[in-house]
Amino acid sequence: MPSHVTPPRGMRDFLPAEKRRRERVLSTVRDVYRSRGFDEIETPVVEGAEYLWSGLGGDNEKQVFAVLRRGLDLDAVRAVASPLELADLGLRFDLTVPLARFYASHRAELPTVFRSVQIAPVWRAERPQKGRYRQFVQCDIDVLGEAGQQAEVELISATTDVLDALGLTGTSIRVNDRRVLTGVLAHWGVPAELTDRALIEIDKLDKIGVDGVATQLREIGVEGDDLAAQLHQLGEATFDSITGSAPPAWLDAEAGADLVALRDALPGSTLVFDPTLVRGMGYYTGTIFEVAHPDVGYSLGGGGRYDGMIGRFLGTEVPAAGFSLGFERIVDLVELDDADDDGLAVLHDKAVPPAELVALQRALLAGGETRVRLERRAKNAKGQLDALAAAGFRRFASVRGGESVADLAIRPIG
Amino acid sequence: MPSHVTPPRGMRDFLPAEKRRRERVLSTVRDVYRSRGFDEIETPVVEGAEYLWSGLGGDNEKQVFAVLRRGLDLDAVRAVASPLELADLGLRFDLTVPLARFYASHRAELPTVFRSVQIAPVWRAERPQKGRYRQFVQCDIDVLGEAGQQAEVELISATTDVLDALGLTGTSIRVNDRRVLTGVLAHWGVPAELTDRALIEIDKLDKIGVDGVATQLREIGVEGDDLAAQLHQLGEATFDSITGSAPPAWLDAEAGADLVALRDALPGSTLVFDPTLVRGMGYYTGTIFEVAHPDVGYSLGGGGRYDGMIGRFLGTEVPAAGFSLGFERIVDLVELDDADDDGLAVLHDKAVPPAELVALQRALLAGGETRVRLERRAKNAKGQLDALAAAGFRRFASVRGGESVADLAIRPIG
Repeated sequence: MPSHVTPPRGMRDFLPAEKRRRERVLSTVRDVYRSRGFDEIETPVVEGAEYLWSGLGGDNEKQVFAVLRRGLDLDAVRAVASPLELADLGLRFDLTVPLARFYASHRAELPTVFRSVQIAPVWRAERPQKGRYRQFVQCDIDVLGEAGQQAEVELISATTDVLDALGLTGTSIRVNDRRVLTGVLAHWGVPAELTDRALIEIDKLDKIGVDGVATQLREIGVEGDDLAAQLHQLGEATFDSITGSAPPAWLDAEAGADLVALRDALPGSTLVFDPTLVRGMGYYTGTIFEVAHPDVGYSLGGGGRYDGMIGRFLGTEVPAAGFSLGFERIVDLVELDDADDDGLAVLHDKAVPPAELVALQRALLAGGETRVRLERRAKNAKGQLDALAAAGFRRFASVRGGESVADLAIRPIG
Repeated sequence: MPSHVTPPRGMRDFLPAEKRRRERVLSTVRDVYRSRGFDEIETPVVEGAEYLWSGLGGDNEKQVFAVLRRGLDLDAVRAVASPLELADLGLRFDLTVPLARFYASHRAELPTVFRSVQIAPVWRAERPQKGRYRQFVQCDIDVLGEAGQQAEVELISATTDVLDALGLTGTSIRVNDRRVLTGVLAHWGVPAELTDRALIEIDKLDKIGVDGVATQLREIGVEGDDLAAQLHQLGEATFDSITGSAPPAWLDAEAGADLVALRDALPGSTLVFDPTLVRGMGYYTGTIFEVAHPDVGYSLGGGGRYDGMIGRFLGTEVPAAGFSLGFERIVDLVELDDADDDGLAVLHDKAVPPAELVALQRALLAGGETRVRLERRAKNAKGQLDALAAAGFRRFASVRGGESVADLAIRPIG
């Protein structure tokens, strides 16, 4: 018998109050995206090894919870040439690889431009730490089959609406374009073969600062004495500085124009140009964006255009862009009203027959109550009422037997 | 590149229409249970090996999708004495073992009598066949900490209300009690050590009939020439035949009285006494029940009292009873209205700027529309409108650029 019974390391149970809170927030996310014409889909939590370890998941592929093949005997186990051969499935680490697999499976049944919503848990075997979990929920929307900026505009508009509906005011969207980044590196004279590694370093700006990134860039072979100054200058750029009569020399003109058009198409969102924004995943090809909230230092979500990826399993190129909200970060910020806390507790003596109690409960619900709990009266009346209040019950009635609904004296709790 | 890209064997993707249908049914289940005072909780999809393979799961323990330990190298793999040593976690095969683990982890934070709801997928590596999936959703409610019949009454009453709310009329609840079954076997003179095996055989009545079960019982050593006749007689028993002046000799009097009291406490449900009902799991200790629906030959769910199990990981005995609905069976039977199909499609020319389209979408939503999809006009107008109708869009408007909401001619689809 274990002395401490706990969920698996880095994973969480959700008790009633937190579970309710999560479901209410998810319901808002789901409703807003649906109202904007997005369609929710669902895929199994496990995917085949050939999709999970296909190279599309970057470092996340190293953090898969792998599922052991069924029916392995000891001889088969000892015959493997690599531990990976023991697994044929794994828990998904994101919702994008499953979407690519889903799209390849069902292309013919989907509209030409498919707007998907996925709201579901993903798993990563990261070292657990504060605020990082091994099972966590992501809310992804994606527009597949739309090569034009209509996709980005709808993604950002709908997500802004979700954040507004959740009461998360003051959010802004940092935007950039992968073409801006490659343009900057070309302007600096960074050889093409160093581009990917240089982007990985620039992505660390938030963590190690301008000087740290400059040092790292020099280490991988990027030349130039004033890298820190150039990074600093890049960080100062704004929409104003790229829309004037003299745009900066490092700016990819077409990408810059697209970003300005994106901003102008979204008067309801606050877009901030940030040419140092990288986003970790290697598959982005165009616009990239992240949600910033004034109260927290981390982003609440992000996404971008990734035209090469969705069609990978299908064998064709499918234009695609997506926006993923980090649900765990959002749910902690949202303040919910207590409109939900409308419960009525019926406190009864032990002697009252179950039949009578359940009949009373039904009559109360039929009469308009939305939530009725039957609970035996505890000796510690105050403790019981406090617990009920914490569970969202605002009123109670005492029952000793023989009462009808009309007889009940319903009193407030607290 | 695989020529057929599919979800893992025995698992399913849900496309928009089916996903929507599932979410609507789940939402009803959730709302009704909540209104009856039950509290929803959530546990991680994986549990530790020590809980999954603890003996509480019966045959289901053989069907666990096991999760490979992280960081195993080839030497570690080859050193194991059994394939099971390769796994430290597994996907849950039911929601009862996780509930026992959850209760042991959080007992101090829960009410004395805890009414839980769990609505979540489970996984079993069964041989896939029609109607059987390797990932499927269960809806479980449980009352923990209540030794009296109040638990059974609330479970059956709330579940009847769920079925009614889903429009599944005509359902009945077959009820029995494990004490009735052990009483029958004692009456037949079956030795106590054969009880468990005899129950396994009686559980096959639906599949192999009275004669088949009689043969099987004789094979395991149950004596008596007229087993088939006795089984037949048992199958004929009803509430009437056990409430008359001469109750049958095989009836455990106390259990019989409890079942009659249960029926009388539930005038809103149709209870049918069935002394041959066994329910597969070994952990049941008292009342057991199953939901029958007139349209299908299988049960839609079931449950019972299992006083010995929930406290196992806690090291104390906790009275408990539960009711599990088989969501996959229910969702296929439910007929939903189309109140949900209220969408408006805005069909636009390619030249209309995204900014204008999204502004129009927002204005329509602000004006009371509940679902607005922006879609480029296709060459095949009829095909496009048919697909929109199938996706729940009832009306459309054409946009060529420059229109305001007031300009739109909204027309019905179909």
